[in-house]
Amino acid sequence: MAKDQRQVDAITARDVDFAQWFTDVCKKAELIDYSSIKGMFIYRPYGYAIWENMQKELDRQFKATGHENVAMPMLIPESLLQKEKDHVEGFAPECAWVTYGGSEKLEERYCIRPTSETLFCEHYKNIIHSHRDLPKLYNQWCSVLRWEKTSRPFLRHREFLWQEGHTMHATAEEAVEETVRILNLYAAFCEDYLAMPVTKGRKTDKEKFSGAEDTYCVECMMHDRKALQAGTSHYFGDGFTKAFDIAFTGADNQLHHPHQTSWGVSTRLIGGIIMTHGDDNGLVLPPRVAPVQAVVLPIAMHKGGVLEKARELKERLEKAGLRVKLDDSDKAPGWKFAEYEMRGVPLRVEIGPKDIEKEQCCVARRDTGEKVFVPLAQMEEAAAKLLDDIHDNMFAMAKKNLEDNTFAAETLEEVKALVEKNSGGFVHTKWCGERACEMAMKEKAGVTSRCIPLEQSGTAGKCPVCGKDCATDIIWGVAY
Amino acid sequence: MAKDQRQVDAITARDVDFAQWFTDVCKKAELIDYSSIKGMFIYRPYGYAIWENMQKELDRQFKATGHENVAMPMLIPESLLQKEKDHVEGFAPECAWVTYGGSEKLEERYCIRPTSETLFCEHYKNIIHSHRDLPKLYNQWCSVLRWEKTSRPFLRHREFLWQEGHTMHATAEEAVEETVRILNLYAAFCEDYLAMPVTKGRKTDKEKFSGAEDTYCVECMMHDRKALQAGTSHYFGDGFTKAFDIAFTGADNQLHHPHQTSWGVSTRLIGGIIMTHGDDNGLVLPPRVAPVQAVVLPIAMHKGGVLEKARELKERLEKAGLRVKLDDSDKAPGWKFAEYEMRGVPLRVEIGPKDIEKEQCCVARRDTGEKVFVPLAQMEEAAAKLLDDIHDNMFAMAKKNLEDNTFAAETLEEVKALVEKNSGGFVHTKWCGERACEMAMKEKAGVTSRCIPLEQSGTAGKCPVCGKDCATDIIWGVAY
Repeated sequence: MAKDQRQVDAITARDVDFAQWFTDVCKKAELIDYSSIKGMFIYRPYGYAIWENMQKELDRQFKATGHENVAMPMLIPESLLQKEKDHVEGFAPECAWVTYGGSEKLEERYCIRPTSETLFCEHYKNIIHSHRDLPKLYNQWCSVLRWEKTSRPFLRHREFLWQEGHTMHATAEEAVEETVRILNLYAAFCEDYLAMPVTKGRKTDKEKFSGAEDTYCVECMMHDRKALQAGTSHYFGDGFTKAFDIAFTGADNQLHHPHQTSWGVSTRLIGGIIMTHGDDNGLVLPPRVAPVQAVVLPIAMHKGGVLEKARELKERLEKAGLRVKLDDSDKAPGWKFAEYEMRGVPLRVEIGPKDIEKEQCCVARRDTGEKVFVPLAQMEEAAAKLLDDIHDNMFAMAKKNLEDNTFAAETLEEVKALVEKNSGGFVHTKWCGERACEMAMKEKAGVTSRCIPLEQSGTAGKCPVCGKDCATDIIWGVAY
Repeated sequence: MAKDQRQVDAITARDVDFAQWFTDVCKKAELIDYSSIKGMFIYRPYGYAIWENMQKELDRQFKATGHENVAMPMLIPESLLQKEKDHVEGFAPECAWVTYGGSEKLEERYCIRPTSETLFCEHYKNIIHSHRDLPKLYNQWCSVLRWEKTSRPFLRHREFLWQEGHTMHATAEEAVEETVRILNLYAAFCEDYLAMPVTKGRKTDKEKFSGAEDTYCVECMMHDRKALQAGTSHYFGDGFTKAFDIAFTGADNQLHHPHQTSWGVSTRLIGGIIMTHGDDNGLVLPPRVAPVQAVVLPIAMHKGGVLEKARELKERLEKAGLRVKLDDSDKAPGWKFAEYEMRGVPLRVEIGPKDIEKEQCCVARRDTGEKVFVPLAQMEEAAAKLLDDIHDNMFAMAKKNLEDNTFAAETLEEVKALVEKNSGGFVHTKWCGERACEMAMKEKAGVTSRCIPLEQSGTAGKCPVCGKDCATDIIWGVAY
């Protein structure tokens, strides 16, 4: 008991040290553990279950939009990685290299995939011949390796779980359409399932994916006002397909190179929900991906009928489609309250002898702490409604944080002052499109470009660095 | 058309060259493709979808028996792999080794997991302290690497997809119980979902998993009378937990080492269903894991109302829970028939103008080729019933093959003669338990021990090699 109590108490306050608070939550809520290799983490059952719920919904949406799952090898021959110049330059420095198979030195080094464009291209070359073979809409769920120097749970792993979609299309238009379709799917998923409001945009040339023509992204603001890139969708044009010599005979009987996309979200999204919604008592999980949506706690368990009623309630809620846990362990109610609060379970359902007498139970919301008494006969509808309310409230609170910390500026100095004052925030300015001005912003104001938002104001203005007339809106921030 | 037709024709006859037939089916049914690294295969959408259906059901059963999913890192430091002597001896020769991270040489080599006992033990050491922490029932879905010299689609990959369960228990009894529970789960899954009859048994010391005390297995007989090990469940005792210094305080307030199990099945099962059920026309898929359970083919599609009726039928069957595909492409019906036959789709549903007039459709079974006319109004029940019948018939045919090719023998010469005559088969004998006799069987009769069946006759007899009196029944065969 004493030890367990300490565990709950040990979370650093969010506003004292956000980074330490984050690490504490990841460890104490048993989402993740460290392995003996720096930067390679263990996804523990509670953390992995969040990912499984995300996977299930995303996979359903991918399939509903015509995508098929495949599994490609995890190793890429060095010569294959080198086929597209920008791509290899971007990824080779952070590849882990296999040089021995058993006791034999390999003739060629293989890297563990940091991403799989090259592998998909090699396969597509074998299976795309005619316009009737297009489009190809493939996705895979796997882990990738990037040998990063620094690491943080969920935000920057040397190995992380993700999905990577790789598609091929007959025309540029179709490929761009797919890129944007997936961007919108990601944005809706973040908002409707993770209660994370997003900003949709395009990356600048400097920030785009190695080898891509255009990188679209969804950017989110965390509670500490820093930015998190939550998902990306890339349009490649025919750069890779030319490099890999992938061609198809069109309806016009001529040879063409297909146009390509790739897109991905990762377990980074779990970091996003922790940093968007968590509070000083620990995790606050969005109900639609929470591994446990309601925990049922019998009060004065030893009294006749309490446990039976608690079990009955659990079964009824499960039958209604909720993910429910009954904790009938002999731990004290106070410990249980703190434990499930720390784990971010959206609803706590208490039922004791007095409740049974009154044919009710007491339901506490994780997001607001509010308690209500609900007649037992109405529990199914009440729980479903409460979960929706919690989702909506969490979204509204995150949206308020985003709006309260979104600013407009006209000069580099203003950007700098705003970001320093708020230790983050999103600052909107105009931008001339020059990389030099983008670099200056980074060096002098300490911000990176988050995105060129898809929703452009269309107004005229001046670049905050060089002062040139320009119309493009851009968003600056401090990113994870 | 001409090209497509050739593709279907190009399958080698099963009895002419079983190995070539198998490879043809894997390629032509688009289950798998080769990558540029020998032994590393690409799981194509149709092959991967079979695995997804297996995963879904197994995962449901694992969770229903209290198991939780996790994700461990894919790399194992060499020093960690070396902690258990037998284990490292078994696996080190076939490990792929990472020696560089980016441009820096690593201080210690990391192998890509060939299996994850060592990683789980390292984690369990951190999280198991008290008897209240037990049991731990973890599983992970991932891929593993084994740098094999030879390879074959599904049967022997350098990288393959699998699940690996790793559990920890307070007592030896509980751990053995878990080992057998999972063996039974695998056996029932093979029979009830894959229509593959199994023999349950224990491996000899020679054949058991490196580091295990006991390896239990399910063995299946393929159509060519060779044996396939379909799944294994290992009991480790406390060998690893001592080597890794994992200990817990028992209810008796003393320190104890937990007892451990691990168990796995892999995409090898797909190889099993191909070789158990396939025929000269291609794949025959067990209905309960088939990606498409029924294909609806509109006949004389251009005639008014046909396509509408076909779509309606597809929707109705999907609503009834079936996985259905409608092929309304402009390919000829003959091509479609051959194509879906080759892909092993259990039911082909044809609907044309005459059928619509008679308010019926024509349903053909993949397993027997039988055709029946079914009133449209009864399609849901008829299709469900037919799928069950197909499953039962496929199981019965495989069972007959197993029984027809299972023999008893008393001497090594008899074993040799039987196996040569039948190019395989399962031969039951007694066995004295000596490795020397097991080795002699391999050298002189060309067979390996498949298993010591759990169902023992209890009769007395003699070892077919040394002639000693003994009671243990053993099964010999030629294995994949």
